[in-house]
Amino acid sequence: MEELSGCDATVMISASEIDANLYYATRFAAPDPFIFVQTSAEKIAVMSDLELDRAKSQSSVDTVLSYGAYERMARQKGADAPSLLDVLDLVLQERGARHLLVPGNFGVEYADGLRARGYTLSVKREPFFEARLVKSDAEVEAIAATQRATEEAMGAAVSAIRAARIESDGLLYLDGEQLTAEALKKIMHMKLMEHECVAQHTIVAPGLQGVDPHHHGNGPIRANESIVIDVFPRSERSRYYADMSRTVVKGKASPKLRAMYRAVLSAQERGMELIRDEADGRAIHAEVNGVLEKDGFTTCMLGGRMQGFFHGTGHGVGLDIHEPPRIGKTGGVLRSGYVVTVEPGLYYLDAGAIRIEDLVVVTAAGCRNLTNFPKEISEFEIE
Amino acid sequence: MEELSGCDATVMISASEIDANLYYATRFAAPDPFIFVQTSAEKIAVMSDLELDRAKSQSSVDTVLSYGAYERMARQKGADAPSLLDVLDLVLQERGARHLLVPGNFGVEYADGLRARGYTLSVKREPFFEARLVKSDAEVEAIAATQRATEEAMGAAVSAIRAARIESDGLLYLDGEQLTAEALKKIMHMKLMEHECVAQHTIVAPGLQGVDPHHHGNGPIRANESIVIDVFPRSERSRYYADMSRTVVKGKASPKLRAMYRAVLSAQERGMELIRDEADGRAIHAEVNGVLEKDGFTTCMLGGRMQGFFHGTGHGVGLDIHEPPRIGKTGGVLRSGYVVTVEPGLYYLDAGAIRIEDLVVVTAAGCRNLTNFPKEISEFEIE
Repeated sequence: MEELSGCDATVMISASEIDANLYYATRFAAPDPFIFVQTSAEKIAVMSDLELDRAKSQSSVDTVLSYGAYERMARQKGADAPSLLDVLDLVLQERGARHLLVPGNFGVEYADGLRARGYTLSVKREPFFEARLVKSDAEVEAIAATQRATEEAMGAAVSAIRAARIESDGLLYLDGEQLTAEALKKIMHMKLMEHECVAQHTIVAPGLQGVDPHHHGNGPIRANESIVIDVFPRSERSRYYADMSRTVVKGKASPKLRAMYRAVLSAQERGMELIRDEADGRAIHAEVNGVLEKDGFTTCMLGGRMQGFFHGTGHGVGLDIHEPPRIGKTGGVLRSGYVVTVEPGLYYLDAGAIRIEDLVVVTAAGCRNLTNFPKEISEFEIE
Repeated sequence: MEELSGCDATVMISASEIDANLYYATRFAAPDPFIFVQTSAEKIAVMSDLELDRAKSQSSVDTVLSYGAYERMARQKGADAPSLLDVLDLVLQERGARHLLVPGNFGVEYADGLRARGYTLSVKREPFFEARLVKSDAEVEAIAATQRATEEAMGAAVSAIRAARIESDGLLYLDGEQLTAEALKKIMHMKLMEHECVAQHTIVAPGLQGVDPHHHGNGPIRANESIVIDVFPRSERSRYYADMSRTVVKGKASPKLRAMYRAVLSAQERGMELIRDEADGRAIHAEVNGVLEKDGFTTCMLGGRMQGFFHGTGHGVGLDIHEPPRIGKTGGVLRSGYVVTVEPGLYYLDAGAIRIEDLVVVTAAGCRNLTNFPKEISEFEIE
């Protein structure tokens, strides 16, 4: 845990299921908001009576207090219908905490209420817990386990594309049915669910759909076009994410697409060579971009659309899918234990889209790839 | 949309994927935070360049602005490394908005920043959009569609219990394997995923585990014990939740368990009789509790544990799994179009647990049950 920066206590009020900092602090996934207080002496969760037992047995906090008990206390002290602030006030008074450290996303409703009661607040921006960036061995293992499931899902999608037949209409058919982006996503999501992993916003973007890097993709899959597949599930068990992308073509890729693939692969390899403790994310991104430019792939606005390489090289992955650091125009310094994606891409309206993405953990001497899935040029075109 | 209560604009900054109000206002699911501004004239989303196209084609806002373009504008005006507040400031200046309406969960970091720049903030608590409580026909349909998937999942679990054999160790076996709570959850989650629905915190609580209503349940399933099954998935397509619970026994239930089941069923039926436009949630809860008490099932602390009926009768369901209103000790008035659960339960350490939960939509004359799954006493014991 972080130090308190001169404050008496850290306070969070949130649903840990949607607030990774609170989950990190408590290791307890709750769908409804609860109060968390951390002093130098203890970590405290104030739970509704229905969640008390579960919090006591599952969370990593030292003390689980009953919200109902404090509500009754507040009522005895004269509060007619005690509010969450009345309860929090009592807990903080007991601990003698007046100066509070809160995260940037702390709700203004509670911030104003605490200030009106005489508390002072220090607001800390992301990363609220800097330690969250440096993954422990157990965290790296959890992320790698999610990546194993991701690889199985990707493998299932690629197998389906391999098994599909190209018919005379130029479309792919599997077991007599048109093979669609939707069908490929379902194949992946079912495989992920077998491993208790859930992916949202999965991208299967055939042809020019992929030229918008965030287009989720839909409709039939056509032969001889790029198919960008990008999937980033979370394990329901560990709550850690993984992330990977591959691009394939069923049939024959155009010479330009093939050249794009080679360039993206080289750029990705160069990026991974540069990743190590203390490396600068911005410099890595510039170098990755340089590889693509040297191969003749420039980035600019063409026909009102950005084309070339116009997103970051990578981002942190952990309890959130997008965490610090960024490896991009605004990247910072990498440290051993950071888990980051390396995902250059190229996007051209006259050719299609290529993105290749692995997930690596930064080490003192370089990085260790947590991804085990083929990406050689020989894997790009599928017969 | 709601009126602005005398403010110039509503402002939200959040990831709509975890903030149902923002999703409701934009109908756009984004995993990363973005700026939303609503004036009396227009709804505006300020999106990163990567999300621009998707927001334009998918969201319900009138205007999608490029975050990058405003960042460049801020740089021209002298900001060295423009922050999100610099961007928001420009957008608000353009619209002449000074007095802002924000939700209670608006981040204190941005609230303080806006106030420091001379903006005034009116903070509105939940329900931020009162209209969210009243479901349109399309919303009711979406919730009902999720409930259809939920019924299939529940059916799959009950079928597995039915197909299982009781062996001499008193445990259930299916296809030669011990039938566990984990296996039943997986059966349900796979079935839900077929319908693009995802459930978290699914409860399959055998025997005394179920006496803690929030215990998720684990381990082998035993004959002649209550098995509480409570599943509340969200559709990945519509983003609307559903919710249902059933309790079954494989083999023979004890007389007390059977009496508990009958009482809970009567209490639930009584609750549903009372639900209608303008009915008071607190009165309904009291009446439901009264049915249980009349049948001799009292609620009290016994051996350090609450026993009897000690949770609410119901809660709203929509884009969040727990929405206003509550039908419970702190319930409010029901209105036509509210979608609520009706889920009394009984929990005793000397017998086990019973919970029966349906999902209904409030109408002028009563309520319409959105749940179509048997719950008669004849369905309780499974041969």
